[in-house]
Amino acid sequence: MRVWLNGALLDADDARIAPGDRGFTLGDGLFETLAVRAGTISRLPAHLARLAAGAQVLGLPLPAFDLPQIAAALLQANGWSDAVLRLTVTRGVGPRGVLPPDQPSPTVLVTAAPMAAPGGPARLVTATVTRRNEHSPLSRIKSLNYLDNILARQEAHTLGADDALLLNTQGRLAESTIANVFLVLDGTLVTPPLGEGALPGVMRAEVLAHGAVERPVSVADLQAASEIFLTSSLGVRSVHELAGRALSSQAAADALRRDITP
Amino acid sequence: MRVWLNGALLDADDARIAPGDRGFTLGDGLFETLAVRAGTISRLPAHLARLAAGAQVLGLPLPAFDLPQIAAALLQANGWSDAVLRLTVTRGVGPRGVLPPDQPSPTVLVTAAPMAAPGGPARLVTATVTRRNEHSPLSRIKSLNYLDNILARQEAHTLGADDALLLNTQGRLAESTIANVFLVLDGTLVTPPLGEGALPGVMRAEVLAHGAVERPVSVADLQAASEIFLTSSLGVRSVHELAGRALSSQAAADALRRDITP
Repeated sequence: MRVWLNGALLDADDARIAPGDRGFTLGDGLFETLAVRAGTISRLPAHLARLAAGAQVLGLPLPAFDLPQIAAALLQANGWSDAVLRLTVTRGVGPRGVLPPDQPSPTVLVTAAPMAAPGGPARLVTATVTRRNEHSPLSRIKSLNYLDNILARQEAHTLGADDALLLNTQGRLAESTIANVFLVLDGTLVTPPLGEGALPGVMRAEVLAHGAVERPVSVADLQAASEIFLTSSLGVRSVHELAGRALSSQAAADALRRDITP
Repeated sequence: MRVWLNGALLDADDARIAPGDRGFTLGDGLFETLAVRAGTISRLPAHLARLAAGAQVLGLPLPAFDLPQIAAALLQANGWSDAVLRLTVTRGVGPRGVLPPDQPSPTVLVTAAPMAAPGGPARLVTATVTRRNEHSPLSRIKSLNYLDNILARQEAHTLGADDALLLNTQGRLAESTIANVFLVLDGTLVTPPLGEGALPGVMRAEVLAHGAVERPVSVADLQAASEIFLTSSLGVRSVHELAGRALSSQAAADALRRDITP
């Protein structure tokens, strides 16, 4: 397996992250997950715009890199035409302490994995172990601070579910641990606004452009929804069960899968 | 500079964190900062107990390691008798995805830095950029997810302050970006309860054992406090200014410095 690290295409076993990298010591960085299909990165400008917005929040100077060229090299090295790319940018090595160095030397890592087969309809639970903090700007950027999501995903796994819904600190829906959430409520397709703690997903924006509306979503709304589905950069995934309640309709999800290229 | 990584004492430049380490990709891990004075680690059992509690929250199996022996080797290699140790434990390398592997191989890294001179009285501000999430169990463990603290520390730095107070999602005091916070209110020494989003600091527990009391602290309390000070594993630090208001008394901090070995 080959990876791209700070300008070099390396065997993964030769790629070295320094022990003092702030991505490792403090989670001080960002990432993007991108789908590559037939050699082309889906929605690259939207991903790069989100990365740049995150870097601005963190005060992290983004180095220049040519992601299509990097992706082409990685896919060729691995012999793939479809893949899932992960782009990670950290603030790089820093001395002990929370305050970032004045002149950081960011780390840029790009890895590729085989494109997974689309998951079947998902079984969801609502996480009780933690809440997503809509008061933090981190809820609106794709940072390396993923432990709340990990805790919720572990809870789902323990309960035999595929993913967990995360509520915000006020007890309303924010997102799932890896996806944005859409609901059909009284015939309207809705998703929580960013202010509720939803990550500004690239696919989420696409579904909103297709006519979905932003609205705070209560637990009662979740119980009343006639359909629920998840969106991520890898596509649209139906939900067939939430906390034991069967959800059989997949009309909205199917329509989007017809209209939107993953 | 020598570091200890997974059983080996290495030159820092030879120590390699794998690009797929979940500490790097997802902030999936814990750390402890420990003071070493005259070759002895201060309050080692309390630090190891906190680490174990954090590992239980994360479902991370802690490997065995002998920290006094590691510390002795690192201090000898660097020619120090006093130092600040950092112990980092991550869930190790995992495949793509949020769900941890069934059988993780954790990464254990110990680094040492020279003991810094005690800081003078601190100038504080209250962070406005973010809030600490007291609804998450992460607020009660010392995890690698430090970006909220980094954002607040950057805000303090921009304002010429040494550190920032973090409020919780309800607008009450939680902690500073690197320390617990104590206030003298009507002659009583108080600190926020853990449920308010305060990290269970090792030095905080010591000060509570000396008679301080836990009580939620409002912004009005902060404005009314006759004295404020910070505690961390490295010691007690006085505060001489909070958001422009001078705080001159250091009686409680001075008394603790007399009574408590840092």
